[in-house]
Amino acid sequence: VCRANLPTPALVLDLDRLEANLDRMAEHVRACGKSLRPHAKTHKCPEIARRQVARGAIGISVATVAEAEAMVAAGLPGVLLTSPIVDQPKIDRMVTLKARGGDVLLAVGHPFEADRLDEAAGAAGVTLDILLDLDVGDRRTGVPVGKPALALARRLAEARHLRLIGVQAYSGLSSHVVGHDDRRRHSHQTLAPAVDLLDQLRRWGLDARILSVASTGTYDIDAELPGVTELQCGSYVFLDQDYQRIGSRRGDRFADFTPSLTVLATVINAQPGLDWVLVDAGIKAFATDVAALPEVVGRPDLLYKRRGDEFGQLFPAQPGAPLPEIGDRLEFTIPHCDPTVNLYDRIHAVRGDRVEAVWPITARREFPPLTS
Amino acid sequence: VCRANLPTPALVLDLDRLEANLDRMAEHVRACGKSLRPHAKTHKCPEIARRQVARGAIGISVATVAEAEAMVAAGLPGVLLTSPIVDQPKIDRMVTLKARGGDVLLAVGHPFEADRLDEAAGAAGVTLDILLDLDVGDRRTGVPVGKPALALARRLAEARHLRLIGVQAYSGLSSHVVGHDDRRRHSHQTLAPAVDLLDQLRRWGLDARILSVASTGTYDIDAELPGVTELQCGSYVFLDQDYQRIGSRRGDRFADFTPSLTVLATVINAQPGLDWVLVDAGIKAFATDVAALPEVVGRPDLLYKRRGDEFGQLFPAQPGAPLPEIGDRLEFTIPHCDPTVNLYDRIHAVRGDRVEAVWPITARREFPPLTS
Repeated sequence: VCRANLPTPALVLDLDRLEANLDRMAEHVRACGKSLRPHAKTHKCPEIARRQVARGAIGISVATVAEAEAMVAAGLPGVLLTSPIVDQPKIDRMVTLKARGGDVLLAVGHPFEADRLDEAAGAAGVTLDILLDLDVGDRRTGVPVGKPALALARRLAEARHLRLIGVQAYSGLSSHVVGHDDRRRHSHQTLAPAVDLLDQLRRWGLDARILSVASTGTYDIDAELPGVTELQCGSYVFLDQDYQRIGSRRGDRFADFTPSLTVLATVINAQPGLDWVLVDAGIKAFATDVAALPEVVGRPDLLYKRRGDEFGQLFPAQPGAPLPEIGDRLEFTIPHCDPTVNLYDRIHAVRGDRVEAVWPITARREFPPLTS
Repeated sequence: VCRANLPTPALVLDLDRLEANLDRMAEHVRACGKSLRPHAKTHKCPEIARRQVARGAIGISVATVAEAEAMVAAGLPGVLLTSPIVDQPKIDRMVTLKARGGDVLLAVGHPFEADRLDEAAGAAGVTLDILLDLDVGDRRTGVPVGKPALALARRLAEARHLRLIGVQAYSGLSSHVVGHDDRRRHSHQTLAPAVDLLDQLRRWGLDARILSVASTGTYDIDAELPGVTELQCGSYVFLDQDYQRIGSRRGDRFADFTPSLTVLATVINAQPGLDWVLVDAGIKAFATDVAALPEVVGRPDLLYKRRGDEFGQLFPAQPGAPLPEIGDRLEFTIPHCDPTVNLYDRIHAVRGDRVEAVWPITARREFPPLTS
């Protein structure tokens, strides 16, 4: 199949660029002496996770139980659930994964979850590996620093069917701080309590072997911290527009990785004499949670506007810019990769013009999977 | 299964409310002497389409070829593809549906599409029923009014394997005009050229039996126009927040239909002493294309904030509002239904606390469907 014949809108992944990104991150963690447990919430795709592990990643981070199930089913090691779960069915599903030999661990930031996991693990006769999830300022998941964190650490250490083996400290607020120096300052300051907590756990004689941190935005920044053992970076595989604007050690654009994912669309209306054309990629083709809009690859003289679920409109950015014709195929950059991937069932993996493979976005699904 | 035990985030449909909405619209079109071909892009769910047809709808409008295939496969009649298609595979899929006995028609707004459909229909030995898609001001799909529309009408009428049977004129810009009087003025003015075009087609002796128009916002407004034969309203089945704000003939809230769709979520973090809690419903649970934010059903004293793909944060709207506890289940209103439904695989159809059925959102899928 040829790239230009895909049914549109289609998610298209450039394999040369993907592989360059994977190689670059693998080389980075090797050079820093850190481990990599990349976050699969970005791609939700076991085929990409396999390529990450083949290049040395020690495991895969996931955001949902369905993602954990998909990654374990694909035979991937070290699957870390980074989000809390509190309802019994999800607790049971994670315990079942473990009982069936799945290599899973969980980040836990609340005694409620600790108690439920402990009880379910005991009932199933398994011991669950746990990271204490520390809230370093995101105000999302995790236990606050200080006394609550120490109390939770004690509770996790004493739980009979849990094994505390470290700390997770994710600073989403640091990830998109613009400017490398500011981002470095923000992240190092934010993560200091996590390093302290890990030291405290060790002073208590606990097996605190893991400190899991970092986004793609702080992949080189957090690797400088001696206490950090592993990085959870996810977006580097695709590098969306939202990351490119944050700058890097080298300049105003974050060009340490290369954008590899695009959306292919078709011009479906173009009437003579009008100053716009319509493409078949709208709200269902691009997640709308960030301010940036998609851009046409190779056509900076065109502007995109959302026009509903199925449609986008293209205008000339400057007078006289030639408009595409009906039936033309265009590729668009992606403002925010994770929720955009979530809109699709499959990734078309291309090398040049050739579609080499179609990869199901297996971990997108709800549970239990529906049969079509 | 009990509503409270669903894996969250879950899309929950109140059947009593759905049925009241379906009954109300069926009664409305009956009283007006119009037909209803409700738009399935709202629900993408054959089970709901069946209930619409069972109450007298003459067919189902769809926005994509995959939606058309799903509705035809479910045995639904009068499936109107309201969006243009120009690439050969999609043209071929629609022709295949027709050749296999599917009851389909297409809205066509460009000679390019007309020619390709005519050729493909001829090759397959079928005749395709066509509505001329008139752009009445949306600047999305369709041919401009005036000479381009008349020229396209001629071309469609002369195409050997197409049968022009009317006009589609959808005014998306009218649908959300706030205030019933302003909306009425906007829609009637916008649709006037469509009524004129239909008259012209009849003067030419063409079989112009259909004028298909209307959104949920203009369901009662467009039904007043004598030339209109059928309504394409879709959102009335769920009635999202974005529609409630437009007002109706009766007042400032559009309360002609009742909100029937919610998202069930779980409180997954709630630390003592903090003024917020976290729920497991974020960007992946609610489409983010409109400004309105989800609201907690029955708890106007709580405010929701998006906190990433998987998370939302709840704050007190007034000091002292009690926060939910960890593990609590909450239901949220939906800012914009169509793209939110697109994020899920299934609709949980509930009656009171009981989950009566789980309906696959079959028409959401890409083509060909992936096997899980």
